[in-house]
Amino acid sequence: MAKRSFWAWGNEADEPTAEQMKTAAGELAARYNVSLNPVTPPNASGLSLRKPRITPPSTLADICVSDDHDRAVHTYGRSLRDRIRAFNFDFPNPPDVVARPRNEQEVEALLEWCSNSGYAAIPFGGGSSTVAGFEPPDGYDGIVTIDLEGLDQVFEIDDVSRAARIQGGIYGPALEGQLRPHGFTMRHYPQSFEFSTLGGWIATRSGGHYATNQTHIDDMVESVRMITPAGIWASRRLPGSGAGPSPDRIALGSEGILGIITEAWMKIQARPVFRASAGVTFPTFAAGADAARQVVQTKLWPGNCRLLDPVEASAAAGMDGTKALLLLGFESAEIPQGEFIQHAVKIARDAGGTVSDDDIKVSDNSAGRPQSETGRQGAVGAWRDSFLNAPYMKNHQAGLGFVTETMETAVTWDRWPELDRAVRAALQDALNRVCGGGTVSCRFTHVYTDGPAPYFTFEGMGRLGAELEMYADIKQAASDAIIAAGGTITHHHAVGRLHRPWYDQQRPDLFAQSLKAIKKTLDPNGVLNPGLLIDA
Amino acid sequence: MAKRSFWAWGNEADEPTAEQMKTAAGELAARYNVSLNPVTPPNASGLSLRKPRITPPSTLADICVSDDHDRAVHTYGRSLRDRIRAFNFDFPNPPDVVARPRNEQEVEALLEWCSNSGYAAIPFGGGSSTVAGFEPPDGYDGIVTIDLEGLDQVFEIDDVSRAARIQGGIYGPALEGQLRPHGFTMRHYPQSFEFSTLGGWIATRSGGHYATNQTHIDDMVESVRMITPAGIWASRRLPGSGAGPSPDRIALGSEGILGIITEAWMKIQARPVFRASAGVTFPTFAAGADAARQVVQTKLWPGNCRLLDPVEASAAAGMDGTKALLLLGFESAEIPQGEFIQHAVKIARDAGGTVSDDDIKVSDNSAGRPQSETGRQGAVGAWRDSFLNAPYMKNHQAGLGFVTETMETAVTWDRWPELDRAVRAALQDALNRVCGGGTVSCRFTHVYTDGPAPYFTFEGMGRLGAELEMYADIKQAASDAIIAAGGTITHHHAVGRLHRPWYDQQRPDLFAQSLKAIKKTLDPNGVLNPGLLIDA
Repeated sequence: MAKRSFWAWGNEADEPTAEQMKTAAGELAARYNVSLNPVTPPNASGLSLRKPRITPPSTLADICVSDDHDRAVHTYGRSLRDRIRAFNFDFPNPPDVVARPRNEQEVEALLEWCSNSGYAAIPFGGGSSTVAGFEPPDGYDGIVTIDLEGLDQVFEIDDVSRAARIQGGIYGPALEGQLRPHGFTMRHYPQSFEFSTLGGWIATRSGGHYATNQTHIDDMVESVRMITPAGIWASRRLPGSGAGPSPDRIALGSEGILGIITEAWMKIQARPVFRASAGVTFPTFAAGADAARQVVQTKLWPGNCRLLDPVEASAAAGMDGTKALLLLGFESAEIPQGEFIQHAVKIARDAGGTVSDDDIKVSDNSAGRPQSETGRQGAVGAWRDSFLNAPYMKNHQAGLGFVTETMETAVTWDRWPELDRAVRAALQDALNRVCGGGTVSCRFTHVYTDGPAPYFTFEGMGRLGAELEMYADIKQAASDAIIAAGGTITHHHAVGRLHRPWYDQQRPDLFAQSLKAIKKTLDPNGVLNPGLLIDA
Repeated sequence: MAKRSFWAWGNEADEPTAEQMKTAAGELAARYNVSLNPVTPPNASGLSLRKPRITPPSTLADICVSDDHDRAVHTYGRSLRDRIRAFNFDFPNPPDVVARPRNEQEVEALLEWCSNSGYAAIPFGGGSSTVAGFEPPDGYDGIVTIDLEGLDQVFEIDDVSRAARIQGGIYGPALEGQLRPHGFTMRHYPQSFEFSTLGGWIATRSGGHYATNQTHIDDMVESVRMITPAGIWASRRLPGSGAGPSPDRIALGSEGILGIITEAWMKIQARPVFRASAGVTFPTFAAGADAARQVVQTKLWPGNCRLLDPVEASAAAGMDGTKALLLLGFESAEIPQGEFIQHAVKIARDAGGTVSDDDIKVSDNSAGRPQSETGRQGAVGAWRDSFLNAPYMKNHQAGLGFVTETMETAVTWDRWPELDRAVRAALQDALNRVCGGGTVSCRFTHVYTDGPAPYFTFEGMGRLGAELEMYADIKQAASDAIIAAGGTITHHHAVGRLHRPWYDQQRPDLFAQSLKAIKKTLDPNGVLNPGLLIDA
């Protein structure tokens, strides 16, 4: 496995060069009309972490390491806060031990060690959390981060039911790589796809793209196998059931506080062959929102129904900054999609959208190999490239005091206009106050019949060394606005330590008490990811 | 509200006449070549129940009754066991009080009374449970059945989000009746539609018809409001969220042990205008199953994709008994469905199915009113009439020793052939042993990409007075076979008291312990529907 960067998105090979960082600094300096000092990328040789405070028992020594680089990589995710702290070698509370179990027995042994010793046991998937989902807690004598990367196999493929038994530690590309020779795909593509795992997706209820109908990983789970300090929690593999509350729905979103997900049976599907896509422009974001709403309420279930406001359409798809862009994509392994895109385009045009017939791309050639081109051309293709590249580009902008981040929510359609207004206002006001200005933009990453999932991006030029406080101020204002306007504090980024204050305002108090009671049952010594979702 | 029959499906006006029962007896006598004595329908004047053991506090007296008829109606659901016991005036353990709260405050007051007194508090929706979902438990000094029929309003309709805030006690017809003037429908049609409620659907995870994509009520819930002895559990109304495990998914399937569902925000939709349907015949059930699997895996999402084996196709749709029948139905408020049914029919024909082009019915007239005819003609229409009428027909066959019931499950496609073989064999063997013969049939009520929901019907002529033991024997054999073959003990009939032994074999032990911990949190005195899902 390639060596992960301790501070940047991706592996060490993905870290930017000094030259690339200089270019990015030049662009930002011009954009904000400031002068910025040149930045040297940090080098892992500069790491000097707190000495490990604990030593694993000899039976676990083979699977445990405590070197500084590994512990640094397992301290922070990849939010702005994380990237700034890592860039600055700011690691006051790293894990003491990073363990890499190779099987369930070793997971059990690790939990037993932590449970008996009172050490925090922190499950680690791909490390791409943006909400401090695996950041070590204060107040523990020992912290053991359990990296599941060794559980990386697709064990079984049931091609008649279109389902597969898959280990929790497998990364997105490996999962798809093991399904591909059999003609299948899970078709779950979070933006973090390269650096996230099946177990992480389940624990955080991740949201995929190509996902209007089945959006969250929840919809693809047949059964879950989870190791808890109290024993094994394994649900029966079923296509559907009405027998009591769903056990899987407790594992889904449990964020590592109840157990470690070692396996799941997941629904898979045939690889798409037929595709159709179109980018429809609208004079305003609101007009595009009306069209998106009508398309999803018509239940055509496009694989992609994504709306960019004029700022995002300009930045991500090369538009001129005056128009919103609705990206529509259909796909199927069996059925030509031309008629489906025509239905959706008609709805969008009737709602005031513009797209030329030439820009409706249809690949209906089932005789050949999958038509990889459709959806990779024109505005749709430009968006796709930008989407996949976005996390890497942030690496180039590190160390400059630049404050930029994304925030996402979901809200019902009736409340969306006010939420959009309030969150934009809160972000802009905070940027003006904190950074002396900045820009705010929004897209819908997902739409449901009853509401969209708006995804906000903001940026401003902060002061080097003060970015964390500036970011906290902006995040607070916008999160308060989201909760006040009836949204959720997260649609697909999870709660983590970052979102706890707002999560506590949205879930029923009795649910939190119930979750505590479940945790006491499964993790009686309270060692699993303490402080996530409920108080430790 | 019409007066409910204390023994038959439906209201007193639906009870069969002596003449109708004589006709049914004649048909069964001919079918089984036996002689059957004439039956007189029981009369409610013959009810003589245990005297009420408790008296409500004066503050609740207005909403409580204890007359025999009301208590009898609230003792049993409408399974074979229930109908036989009621028919025989066999009510050893009725509720002492039937309460009908008119608002949440009265629900709270009732729970407080029960909780403080240690009386069992049993939520009652429409009374159509087939699994003893509200049958009073032994061992309590008092039993208060809480009938929610007074909470029967659609409070708000959000027409832009297509969602409605609806009270838990509303019956299916009233719910649809209150949505209809606004052009909406919830489109959730369990077979019990007339005698079941929104709260009951949520508490039991009911399954609707017209429901290939969104099958269970789970998929239509935006938020739930539930009164528990510990306070109010109210989730935030959201189209989607990734913030921790879903609180709603704990209320869904809780079968009255955690709280009383007083309100929910539910997704609704525009009323269908465009329809298309076809009945495709197959030489075998297995060939039809292959076609159904391919249709659902193609993700065309028909509203109806229902497969009848040759026995059911003969009984319910007038076929000749040699062919299986796949019922396909598409519907939409916005889009003509002709091309969709053509895709599905092509798949079905390629899989060996037969349907003439003339028998593919398409209503694409959006100018006029909804085309109510399509789907109500030919084989599809015959099935529909039979489906809606089936529960009433059983009333006619009471008091004859006739043993007939349905059982349903869900299983992945890979395991389905063996489950089908094993359950049919277990049922037939048990019928031969217990009744000296009988018939077994099966249909798929629902299909998922990863498996079908098979629904078995069996019948045999038992001995009058011994039907309960005979039924228990048959049910045991078939349920054991379902669990051994990897199925669920219920896909959409709930667990109740009837399915507990098999439910206990399928859910993770740690889940049951977790559910106990939740119940202890929400219902510390353990008064809500004791014995359901977990031990009291």
